[in-house]
Amino acid sequence: MKASARNQFSGQITAIQDGTVNDEVELQTASGLRVVATVTRASRDTLGLRVGANVVALVKASSVVLVTDAGGVRFSARNQFQGTVSQVTLGAVNSEVALTLADGELLVAIVTNESADGLGLSAGQTATALFKAGSVILGVAA
Amino acid sequence: MKASARNQFSGQITAIQDGTVNDEVELQTASGLRVVATVTRASRDTLGLRVGANVVALVKASSVVLVTDAGGVRFSARNQFQGTVSQVTLGAVNSEVALTLADGELLVAIVTNESADGLGLSAGQTATALFKAGSVILGVAA
Amino acid sequence: MKASARNQFSGQITAIQDGTVNDEVELQTASGLRVVATVTRASRDTLGLRVGANVVALVKASSVVLVTDAGGVRFSARNQFQGTVSQVTLGAVNSEVALTLADGELLVAIVTNESADGLGLSAGQTATALFKAGSVILGVAA
Repeated sequence: MKASARNQFSGQITAIQDGTVNDEVELQTASGLRVVATVTRASRDTLGLRVGANVVALVKASSVVLVTDAGGVRFSARNQFQGTVSQVTLGAVNSEVALTLADGELLVAIVTNESADGLGLSAGQTATALFKAGSVILGVAA
Repeated sequence: MKASARNQFSGQITAIQDGTVNDEVELQTASGLRVVATVTRASRDTLGLRVGANVVALVKASSVVLVTDAGGVRFSARNQFQGTVSQVTLGAVNSEVALTLADGELLVAIVTNESADGLGLSAGQTATALFKAGSVILGVAA
Repeated sequence: MKASARNQFSGQITAIQDGTVNDEVELQTASGLRVVATVTRASRDTLGLRVGANVVALVKASSVVLVTDAGGVRFSARNQFQGTVSQVTLGAVNSEVALTLADGELLVAIVTNESADGLGLSAGQTATALFKAGSVILGVAA
């Protein structure tokens, strides 16, 4: 499977929380990363999602918010990963920022250049990547 | 109405699934495309959404994930459309990819250049566009 | 706190609507802007969100849809702000558009160049910015 989402986390479902229209699914990667996704009940049924199933979580780089100097602020985003900036690629309006997480996985974010400047993002810096459970698409092998 | 969302699907509501905070709305375009949107209950009430109503679904190009060689992997995204790549426009960090769907409609996605490279996206190739119901904004004429 | 999300609205929670998996949180800024966010119940509990609490709402520029000449069309997006375009920065595929809202706050959107062209976006023009409650990340000071 080849998908354009820059962030793809393979793991096993560890928990499912029932909702009415939306369910919340938690998976854990082999390296220990926990990713939370919100999917509609209809998708859960169609895919046969259940605890123990192997899934891949797709997250677009444009769905990721980067935070530096959190200064004690806590965020509602269910997915929050600390890492070290490994590369910043500048475009005309947007920059692509690669973050190496504690478990060695790479996480990529697209932020505006002004944000990259404002955060002073450069290689070696610590940052936290946030993305909402609602930004995650789950895939399952047939 | 002029909106910046590159993907705009006009159709008629065919089903509404009740939730507590979020409702799920399905529409069908004249060409037969089925699009699913999640909207808050408050929006549904304000807009008076009901089966049979004419609506337009707005989807930003940056909300679309492209998949090639799915290899049997199935996805949770409620909106999944197969098409043929008709154009790839390269930017500094992002590429814009236009897909012609089976019904002739055009669907546009923004992906990072590295993704476009990784998928080997070029005109004539088959690809599937995924976007979550939560990425869709509905509009109704007054 | 420094976050890459270009749009950051500080305010006080004025209402919370209970859901099963998702709750809906409304905040109001000092300047009177009302912003609606959907967060998971788990996040609400962890952050201790309650009416009266001070929060900051983060909204990525890429989550914002711009509308001109709405022509009576009404939208499902819970957040809708009218403003005047103050700046358009063209990139290779995407443009960054800054909107000055009625209360003086700045709101930034990333749209494709073709959309910017199609809407004829230029300084001085009136436009409405739309973003879904599901696009908003909330932050609270410790």
